[in-house]
Amino acid sequence: MSIIRDVLIWDSERQNAEAGDIVINDSGLVSEILPPKSAKGERLFDGGGYTAAIPGLVNSHTHVSMTLLRGLAEELPLMRWLQTKIFPVENRLLPQHIRSGGELALLEMISGGVTCFADMYYFMREVAAATVGAGMRAALCRGITGDDSKKLNENLALADEFNGRDGRIIVQLGPHAPYTVPRDAIEKIASIARDKKLGVHFHWLETEGELETFRDEYKISPSDYLEGTGLLAVPKLLLAHCVWHPVDELDRVKRDNVTLVHNPKSNLKLGSGYAPIKQMLEKGVNVALGTDGAASNNRLDVWDEMRTAALMHKGYHKDPTLLSARQVLKMATVAGASGMGFERVGLIKKGWHADLALVNIAGPAYVGADVTNLPEFLVYAGSSRDVRATIVGGKILYKDGRYLTMDRDEIISKTTEHRKQIVKT
Amino acid sequence: MSIIRDVLIWDSERQNAEAGDIVINDSGLVSEILPPKSAKGERLFDGGGYTAAIPGLVNSHTHVSMTLLRGLAEELPLMRWLQTKIFPVENRLLPQHIRSGGELALLEMISGGVTCFADMYYFMREVAAATVGAGMRAALCRGITGDDSKKLNENLALADEFNGRDGRIIVQLGPHAPYTVPRDAIEKIASIARDKKLGVHFHWLETEGELETFRDEYKISPSDYLEGTGLLAVPKLLLAHCVWHPVDELDRVKRDNVTLVHNPKSNLKLGSGYAPIKQMLEKGVNVALGTDGAASNNRLDVWDEMRTAALMHKGYHKDPTLLSARQVLKMATVAGASGMGFERVGLIKKGWHADLALVNIAGPAYVGADVTNLPEFLVYAGSSRDVRATIVGGKILYKDGRYLTMDRDEIISKTTEHRKQIVKT
Repeated sequence: MSIIRDVLIWDSERQNAEAGDIVINDSGLVSEILPPKSAKGERLFDGGGYTAAIPGLVNSHTHVSMTLLRGLAEELPLMRWLQTKIFPVENRLLPQHIRSGGELALLEMISGGVTCFADMYYFMREVAAATVGAGMRAALCRGITGDDSKKLNENLALADEFNGRDGRIIVQLGPHAPYTVPRDAIEKIASIARDKKLGVHFHWLETEGELETFRDEYKISPSDYLEGTGLLAVPKLLLAHCVWHPVDELDRVKRDNVTLVHNPKSNLKLGSGYAPIKQMLEKGVNVALGTDGAASNNRLDVWDEMRTAALMHKGYHKDPTLLSARQVLKMATVAGASGMGFERVGLIKKGWHADLALVNIAGPAYVGADVTNLPEFLVYAGSSRDVRATIVGGKILYKDGRYLTMDRDEIISKTTEHRKQIVKT
Repeated sequence: MSIIRDVLIWDSERQNAEAGDIVINDSGLVSEILPPKSAKGERLFDGGGYTAAIPGLVNSHTHVSMTLLRGLAEELPLMRWLQTKIFPVENRLLPQHIRSGGELALLEMISGGVTCFADMYYFMREVAAATVGAGMRAALCRGITGDDSKKLNENLALADEFNGRDGRIIVQLGPHAPYTVPRDAIEKIASIARDKKLGVHFHWLETEGELETFRDEYKISPSDYLEGTGLLAVPKLLLAHCVWHPVDELDRVKRDNVTLVHNPKSNLKLGSGYAPIKQMLEKGVNVALGTDGAASNNRLDVWDEMRTAALMHKGYHKDPTLLSARQVLKMATVAGASGMGFERVGLIKKGWHADLALVNIAGPAYVGADVTNLPEFLVYAGSSRDVRATIVGGKILYKDGRYLTMDRDEIISKTTEHRKQIVKT
């Protein structure tokens, strides 16, 4: 038994926060929550009464290794950004770059209280190995473009090797997007996903042009496409972006196995539009939150993403009651974890995995925070700088500025070198 | 002479950042910039080559003491927010609350590299004294509502006592807004401002309703009002918000003495709308950046404000080329300082005040940053957590988490107590 002592506990199932000790068993599960300063056992962390314990944050759509491409191309339209800056550099990436860039991303996410993420890229064995080593939780897939059996086979090999590893890795299939994968290949991937009980991670209607293509070229409604290809029937479907998913087709994606991932900052930065989050939530669709890759954000900071989500829709709809702090915290925790297929992840309760972000609430920005308003303080006044510790399955990955499972200086030094290589070549 | 050694220097007049030592004379002015590691003198700070030196950030519209009201009312429409939550508590605020709340705000701003701010509230002697004590720079005014000679006299007494103090305090006159001050009182205030050579800080067209009032009730164009009241002729005019300033009247406020202050997060949070920043910048109007008060933001974090500004307009206009990182950094430094009437503040150059934010660029988010792309990394990837030191007039206020001019723990303890008082009463 180990103890997170004297913290203010909040998750999406609670109205008010609760002062208590979190007891974690040897399987890394929360075994009970006791009154503050009452639990016996090894003290993993002492919150001293001025630390919030919330579920570890979940980044439900990213491309971690793109940290190596951060800032390479700024303030450009999407297609010029991709074609003149991103694609040429991506063509030069080698497995070692994917590994180091991924590790750099894990450093950034872990220091911000992120415990779990969903990733799509290539050379994904490297990302999986980095994730296993760092002790994080992730749903990973090999991005598949075209009708490319080599890429599909790499994705399946990734599943064979890593799916279920340490209870922390889920492998999904990663068809990239409707406009990069032919329909029959999508159907094949969806069918394999159902057979092998794998989830699917898919880019979905990020830009208005994609919606127009459905109308003018495919001549099919987006939801009919999702259903017709078999995607709606895969065990877990993670649809990233969904900026242009038709509002009158939200009923079709309101399913236990389907999660829409909102990427607020990337959508703003690339000028993609405003996802209809208001309507998604009204319909009861499961909505999660993601940063997208660091090349189009440029932070892997779920705090930033929560605050931006909570503010941008209020502003856009001129309605300050929209998208509450509590709704975005749910999106950034349990909604994302369950959307990827992780069970008992994203709440702080008995029998659930002890994935936690411990947040300093003793700083200037938290004066006035109490058990009734903690989530609002976290989202509107808090930030990743307040994270004191990040814990996955009861194991501390980060505490008071130090990484316990990763060599920060070595990773920064290696990525600095790799960045020079890929930009120069 | 004291030295900021081995830093990467950037300000709005530079295309590329420059490695160097900043030499500061005994008057707190930059006396020269020398090659890195070459300057002789007392070492104020050693950047070790992995620290950026940028002008201290400028928060051009806030109400610092509202930190005591942070989180008191969330997710409410503006008028309900004001009338049911904010006003009743504000009525209970005493000078000691204004002082402690102000000090709490200074803690937060200083730790985020903010060196200068413009504030409007009441019991402003307390804010002035806190600012003098903390060593920050500020333009302060007593908010005047109604045709209230008591408030005006308090504002003038503030000017008598504090204007020009230590070269760091400017006192302005603070008519609150067109809808809270009768026109003849505005005219009187503007006339006094011109006589006494004082600037004016004014809330301007924050909500659409205010614009409608100009059209339907005052039956005058906003710009004719600014001109007719004499406001356009005061030495410095700071217009906060400007969300609904008519785009076809931007020429009228394009004047050396007029600055429009953009408050991106407050405008989003309260659902006020999108200020026409794109058009303001196209017209060449001077635009600054502000957080507004902590009750409607809820952070006094200019980094957050810069990033939100840079992202929200790209998203709203679906144009990723809009509002560049360099434009928002200018808004958040020299444009704000000059808008308040501070001379030689906001750039790092010979003869200018040594007001600096020193930023750690050795962390994971800065891999890839170099002399060519530093501003973009700062705005899109950086955050207030990277601030290592904050310097005003050559004096260090904050370094590596410690405050050199303020007692952090005492202020937090006092404000925690005060918060309870004002909420309970």
